[in-house]
Amino acid sequence: MNAPHKPLLTDAARPATFEVEALNERGEAVPTPIAGEHPLTLYLDKRELVTLMTLGQAPEALALGYLRNQRLVRGIEEIAAVQVDWETDSVAVTTRKGVKGLGARMKKRTVTTGCGQGTVFGDLMEEIESIRLRDDVRLEEAALYALLDAVRRHETIYKTAGAVHGCALIANEPPGAPGASPILYFVEDVGRHNAVDAIAGRMWLDGVDGSDKIFYTTGRLTSEMVIKCAQMRVPFLVSRSGLTQMGWTVARRTGITMLGRAVGKHYLLFTGRHRFVKTSLPTMTA
Amino acid sequence: MNAPHKPLLTDAARPATFEVEALNERGEAVPTPIAGEHPLTLYLDKRELVTLMTLGQAPEALALGYLRNQRLVRGIEEIAAVQVDWETDSVAVTTRKGVKGLGARMKKRTVTTGCGQGTVFGDLMEEIESIRLRDDVRLEEAALYALLDAVRRHETIYKTAGAVHGCALIANEPPGAPGASPILYFVEDVGRHNAVDAIAGRMWLDGVDGSDKIFYTTGRLTSEMVIKCAQMRVPFLVSRSGLTQMGWTVARRTGITMLGRAVGKHYLLFTGRHRFVKTSLPTMTA
Repeated sequence: MNAPHKPLLTDAARPATFEVEALNERGEAVPTPIAGEHPLTLYLDKRELVTLMTLGQAPEALALGYLRNQRLVRGIEEIAAVQVDWETDSVAVTTRKGVKGLGARMKKRTVTTGCGQGTVFGDLMEEIESIRLRDDVRLEEAALYALLDAVRRHETIYKTAGAVHGCALIANEPPGAPGASPILYFVEDVGRHNAVDAIAGRMWLDGVDGSDKIFYTTGRLTSEMVIKCAQMRVPFLVSRSGLTQMGWTVARRTGITMLGRAVGKHYLLFTGRHRFVKTSLPTMTA
Repeated sequence: MNAPHKPLLTDAARPATFEVEALNERGEAVPTPIAGEHPLTLYLDKRELVTLMTLGQAPEALALGYLRNQRLVRGIEEIAAVQVDWETDSVAVTTRKGVKGLGARMKKRTVTTGCGQGTVFGDLMEEIESIRLRDDVRLEEAALYALLDAVRRHETIYKTAGAVHGCALIANEPPGAPGASPILYFVEDVGRHNAVDAIAGRMWLDGVDGSDKIFYTTGRLTSEMVIKCAQMRVPFLVSRSGLTQMGWTVARRTGITMLGRAVGKHYLLFTGRHRFVKTSLPTMTA
């Protein structure tokens, strides 16, 4: 890890949950924790780009990761400051030298939905063709089981309040000392894409290289999840959930090693088998 | 139900699932059904509006419901034709007399994400203030339990392939004959919002009034889910999942009767208590 460039940053995380009262089936008033959700309007060099609905755990990293994953800014060294102001529900990102052709690129934007985020579908497919993921790294089955166990033990907002998605960046190491966690970052958000983007932002801020790491998500493996993972050059993508057709198609094209339905000692390996190493003997079944 | 105006319609549903091969933890190759997912670009009077990623179960109703919930078209009688063409992944909606000020309204569009769909946040809050839901309708606890049972028994793509959200419009009736289902529509999609929009489209096509019905979703109760439900004038919103802060805030403002964590004989009643009638006696707990 090189000492990366650090922009000027606020540190404006919001409380993750708050309580409301609900009536349950026994007629009892139950204090119920719910996940926070705040609009955060992103300005790039004073130009309004997007309003993100976020839990607000890591708003500075979220803004940076959004700009990274939308390919609006090429490197963290281009960023001078990231300033979150909850009085106005806004985050102002200032670049050192401006962003070339921002106006033109914003005009081109097509809204893609289905839990979309304004990704241009055509450009996405072009982007995929240009991505090369490392082929000299492997994920051992024992490391997979260790990470699933670490994720299970991790304290989460989901366990308290539900209604959020979690993502993690995980070190690809053989199981370490008992209690040692391979989790480098764990971010939750009301939007699945926000959690990914916040991790991308933190990787930039800390100068972390993703090319041998594992990306874990509680959410479905959609095309956007796969492409964001590949853009961060992470070759391993693991989810507790299932996958969609476009997610599978994009995974095949990028050659990413993708595992779904990964819980406990179960998983389904969908694509990129060459990077996966089965370390345990097949279990005998009756 | 009045005989509503019927536009010219294609009938172009796509196969819901297809199979890919995966390797499981025992090293076995497992044929795994996954949900279909197709880009569908929506043109309104030849103008490109949005690309929806959809399962494709009800593409015509989805296009109509999208236009309805985005308030781009005021009534089904304005629509002349809805034509889906999977060769070009497009749906062309033609109005009878054109849409006034469409260009200006599209310019104003701000992308709101966090699983957003291009809703303008400010406008949303204005819209909420103008919505009045019926206050002379009630949901009895027994009807709630009956609908939860009907949803549980309903055959779904989710049970086969996962990775989809389901929504249903449900008749608000006391439990009927055994086997009779109160479910009027049940739509699943890879995008939560698409499933809601498809139901809104079918309600338009069939001339169904939502003002005494129940809307059920497997997904979280976000602000956009609540507002769409209220726009359809449906006073009851029930979810298997939890809620977000904005969902709760919008529910309070609209006065909708909202229940979350509704599974089996459990539920949490969050807002709009005056429309809910507890019919069973409190269960004694040890």
